[in-house]
Amino acid sequence: MINPGCVVIAGAGAGDSELLTLKALKAIQAADCIVYDRLVNPDILKHATPECELIYGGKTSCGCSNLQDSINKILLQKAKARKKVLRLKGGDPLVFGRGYEEALYLEQHGIAHQFIPGISSLLAVPMAAGIPLTHRHIASSFHTFTGHGADSNLDYATIAKLQGTLVFFMAVGTLDEICNQLIDNGKGANTPTALIENGTLSNQRVIQGNLATIAKLGKENHVKAPALLIIGQVCALPPAKIS
Amino acid sequence: MINPGCVVIAGAGAGDSELLTLKALKAIQAADCIVYDRLVNPDILKHATPECELIYGGKTSCGCSNLQDSINKILLQKAKARKKVLRLKGGDPLVFGRGYEEALYLEQHGIAHQFIPGISSLLAVPMAAGIPLTHRHIASSFHTFTGHGADSNLDYATIAKLQGTLVFFMAVGTLDEICNQLIDNGKGANTPTALIENGTLSNQRVIQGNLATIAKLGKENHVKAPALLIIGQVCALPPAKIS
Repeated sequence: MINPGCVVIAGAGAGDSELLTLKALKAIQAADCIVYDRLVNPDILKHATPECELIYGGKTSCGCSNLQDSINKILLQKAKARKKVLRLKGGDPLVFGRGYEEALYLEQHGIAHQFIPGISSLLAVPMAAGIPLTHRHIASSFHTFTGHGADSNLDYATIAKLQGTLVFFMAVGTLDEICNQLIDNGKGANTPTALIENGTLSNQRVIQGNLATIAKLGKENHVKAPALLIIGQVCALPPAKIS
Repeated sequence: MINPGCVVIAGAGAGDSELLTLKALKAIQAADCIVYDRLVNPDILKHATPECELIYGGKTSCGCSNLQDSINKILLQKAKARKKVLRLKGGDPLVFGRGYEEALYLEQHGIAHQFIPGISSLLAVPMAAGIPLTHRHIASSFHTFTGHGADSNLDYATIAKLQGTLVFFMAVGTLDEICNQLIDNGKGANTPTALIENGTLSNQRVIQGNLATIAKLGKENHVKAPALLIIGQVCALPPAKIS
């Protein structure tokens, strides 16, 4: 599954530890060294062998200029030491995950790598709230954004015109801006909207409102990251109950 | 995992049989009856018990007016007979999957159900070609459409303006229309584009071109469904090699 001196970059899935794939499970069981992220469910790490070295990727320090540099260098160092290295990320490694950048860095240093996808929040979280991303009659597309950081330079004039479901990752800090911009650019203030905190976990909360109310509701309910924002008519369908 | 008289609606993932989640695996092992789709990898059904009844959902017939009615009625009948029923779909049940419609039908007939997500082609197929959906500097969003049937009444004027990655499911039959409409609405004819057939499987093929050339290339190479169309600058990145 992982050859010595190689790196597997895998998604651990979102929240629920059983959303792990069989392929990722095998990689965890085979790994000598796992560099994992903050959003990886700790139960997933229990599949590792007792000898496996577990390195938390949110805290590592090597005197590098930033965290990503630090992670890259650890992956490189462990691979050069002929370890079977697993880079384990919450959700999916290529959905706002920088998995590509890590792979390219390894490639530039002559280290072979492999990707394994993970169940992204995009799939798991709306589902856990009974909200479908698509629906034959009311949403024939969906559109995935991040509300966070350097990635969030968004063309709201165009986005406001989209008829499909809008999904924003990491939107808690920018809820006001996202909703106001969409309304200012012509999206109906009464567009059904849901904010889902800790999706798929036992402490999941689903806050429902519309574009004009959801930011206030989020604040009143003290919603914290990680949370997913969903905007569109699918949020007003009768929720398909989770038994 | 599945109670008698209940239905679990689960995704089997795209292509590769090891993209199944642990949660879906448990449901397969527990099921008395599995109604599966054409795109479910046959190797996945080997996890079922010898006693489990396997029903191919692409062929069932009950004199119903259409296939979906037929599937709904089988699920209902098996649940009423107190079976542990698993509805197993290719990819993810809520991404162009009608899983919501099936759940609502069951709910209306008093049958409890549960969803389990699956690794959609959206995640697995671009990754298997080394193409990231997002990239900090060139794609801060991605947009998912179906090129097929009643779902494809698309607003190309708006879609052509999107800066993120565009992904079309079931696009083989409408490649010409999608590409021409995007170009006619102002999307650059030289926008990098990839068409991926049998993604994640051993017979995967990746055809690369641009918006102006991909339809012709698809035809010349006799690309058949299932295939995924990806449009955007991420298709021109050096592919992160899969070892």
